[in-house]
Amino acid sequence: MEKLEKQITKMGDQALAASRKLINFSTNKKNLILLSMADELNTQRKLIQTENAKDLAAAEENGLSKAMIDRLTLNDERIDGMINGIREVAELKDPVGKKIWKRIRPNGLIIEKKRVPLGVVCIIFESRPNVTADAAVLCFKTSNAVILRGGKEAFYSNTAIAAALQKGGAAAGMPKDAIQLVSTIDREAVRILVQLDGKIDVVIPRGGESLIKAVVSNATIPVLKHYKGVCHLYVEKEADIEKALAIAENAKCQRPGVCNAIETLLVDKEIAARFLPLLKKMADRCGVEIHGCKTTCNIIPGCTPATEDDWYEEYLDMILAVKVVSNTKVAIEHINTYGSHHSDAIVTEDKRSANKFLKEIDSSSVYVNASTRFTDGAMFGMGAEMGISTDKLHARGPMGLEELTTYKYTITGTGQIR
Amino acid sequence: MEKLEKQITKMGDQALAASRKLINFSTNKKNLILLSMADELNTQRKLIQTENAKDLAAAEENGLSKAMIDRLTLNDERIDGMINGIREVAELKDPVGKKIWKRIRPNGLIIEKKRVPLGVVCIIFESRPNVTADAAVLCFKTSNAVILRGGKEAFYSNTAIAAALQKGGAAAGMPKDAIQLVSTIDREAVRILVQLDGKIDVVIPRGGESLIKAVVSNATIPVLKHYKGVCHLYVEKEADIEKALAIAENAKCQRPGVCNAIETLLVDKEIAARFLPLLKKMADRCGVEIHGCKTTCNIIPGCTPATEDDWYEEYLDMILAVKVVSNTKVAIEHINTYGSHHSDAIVTEDKRSANKFLKEIDSSSVYVNASTRFTDGAMFGMGAEMGISTDKLHARGPMGLEELTTYKYTITGTGQIR
Repeated sequence: MEKLEKQITKMGDQALAASRKLINFSTNKKNLILLSMADELNTQRKLIQTENAKDLAAAEENGLSKAMIDRLTLNDERIDGMINGIREVAELKDPVGKKIWKRIRPNGLIIEKKRVPLGVVCIIFESRPNVTADAAVLCFKTSNAVILRGGKEAFYSNTAIAAALQKGGAAAGMPKDAIQLVSTIDREAVRILVQLDGKIDVVIPRGGESLIKAVVSNATIPVLKHYKGVCHLYVEKEADIEKALAIAENAKCQRPGVCNAIETLLVDKEIAARFLPLLKKMADRCGVEIHGCKTTCNIIPGCTPATEDDWYEEYLDMILAVKVVSNTKVAIEHINTYGSHHSDAIVTEDKRSANKFLKEIDSSSVYVNASTRFTDGAMFGMGAEMGISTDKLHARGPMGLEELTTYKYTITGTGQIR
Repeated sequence: MEKLEKQITKMGDQALAASRKLINFSTNKKNLILLSMADELNTQRKLIQTENAKDLAAAEENGLSKAMIDRLTLNDERIDGMINGIREVAELKDPVGKKIWKRIRPNGLIIEKKRVPLGVVCIIFESRPNVTADAAVLCFKTSNAVILRGGKEAFYSNTAIAAALQKGGAAAGMPKDAIQLVSTIDREAVRILVQLDGKIDVVIPRGGESLIKAVVSNATIPVLKHYKGVCHLYVEKEADIEKALAIAENAKCQRPGVCNAIETLLVDKEIAARFLPLLKKMADRCGVEIHGCKTTCNIIPGCTPATEDDWYEEYLDMILAVKVVSNTKVAIEHINTYGSHHSDAIVTEDKRSANKFLKEIDSSSVYVNASTRFTDGAMFGMGAEMGISTDKLHARGPMGLEELTTYKYTITGTGQIR
């Protein structure tokens, strides 16, 4: 334990030292380093796949689900995806150094507010090994040093990817410790990391409830949570039924395993008898299981009766909770109470209900007549994204390059005193 | 204990409910409520002073320092200050609802990023009772519900001020629980407050090291620290000595008890023999005690030798730590290591050293040839301030109205799916 504490603390010190060097890197230099990382990933493709095979073998042995094994697999297409992702990040505009405002005060002081790197960012993530590359390059592009801690299922894959990034980066002049990967699967490492005040500036946990809870309850450094998505679709009484059905199908079925897919559908009681049988048809066609409230079960017999737990549940699967509500006010209360403040949509042709929903729903992304699946950095026109923050402070919703920076004030005078 | 937990949790629920109502308050309505609060404070002036006298009597009894007793005292001038402060906040521009950007995407989706309230803000503060009014009205102006927890030394004063704000606010239509004050001095209340996930959106601790540590180590909700100011003045070898002396005197002596006063002065070895005797003269004239490094003590005999602890110390008093350093690089390293990332200044006529300092010092406010005492919302042209954040996330440096908001995306479509 003593030894692990030393090892992790040393990583923090090294990251801090690297971050101080990165302050002086030009955008051009950073982009050349990024391209060198992409090239090295390509060179080491076979090695990465050999290491990945070790993770896949262990996953089979441990009986991981097919979906999990699929997410772990680094086929050529996925490695190409990582490489192209890095090249795209090199093309993105660098937010570091951007002037937010400049003021000349009556006493002659020149005050500038400018974007600067956060410093040292720690990312704790689960399963998908390509996050190693995605997260590392976004941090590097914004002149942050990064400490990565991946899931044990992808240990060999993550290690190979990080080694390639470090080698490629170093060849073009990157400080050795700008990108570091925690080289143990000991869970205690996470507790130590999130208490490295003064060395790490922020920890971003991306994953399930137990990971987030472990980070939040131990952390003394600031946390930006990428937590679950319990997203809703509310079919208001003035809804266009065709739009509602198309959005429900898209938001539930297009990719049920992601955070911006819907988990619960609410429907106004005045439209329920008309809408629910059509919803049931869609569900049967697509293979969606409905967990319905009492009224829902009366209208469309044969659904599973929903319990209180269903309203909190992030199924990430072809299951949809359905509840009949008496009006928009009740729908909003339900969403604000049971939701995860991620993405929620109303389908309605009534402007007043739409505006009430947009104003009162306390979520990062609130929709009228569109699928919640659009909550995404690229879809919002922000370029690459680090993930989707479910917090309200600093970064809310899709987190791009700018959200990986902070700002500072520089004040230039000629001897002014107060 | 059980009972306290229930009581504090109920406050959280009430604040959340109030914050949901405040979403629909117009700027105009909020301003009328603010003016009504100011009037009620004026009406209750005598009662507030009677209650304040109880705190002052207890302070005398408990042997609090003269400075502490002064900070506690609510004379007419200070009550006028609170009243005028509220009226000024009513005049400030409301950031809520402000559009940050609007994009129409190729698929026709209209995405708007807008400022919205944080929700429920919890402020934990020490000693000065006027913070009760200052913090409450800034939160209210930004449509946030607030839970205030003041220090036990100002318990009666805080209670009287909060009651006046509540009465004045309610008379003009403020929801009863928009402003709440914790009515116990039990420290356990703080632990419960900072773990009210889902009810409180952010806690802002303003105070000393033990308060900040207690909050940070217990909190599961996001924290914005208003921590100590270990601020530095670095006199570079190309400094204008007259400017350096004037800035040193101002930054140390004008108000030594505040966070943007300097605690440590660094001086380049090439200029030390010339500068330090003049600094000593100023120190003697103003009554400043110098804790010097070995070289400093050699140049100006009779100072107290500084220990390692001196470099971390926030004296908040007429004491100045002084160290001779070999160049700008070493000065920057010292400040980034021992400082609190608050406000630091260089005095130099050399542009290269100035730019290096501005770029590499990791603090919210970095100065060239001006006093650190300017770190302040009003001085920066931001209007009123909540305090000065020493964090990097969300709010860094002076925290104004805008920093009491977050943003949300509203997406309006015509049935778009992915």
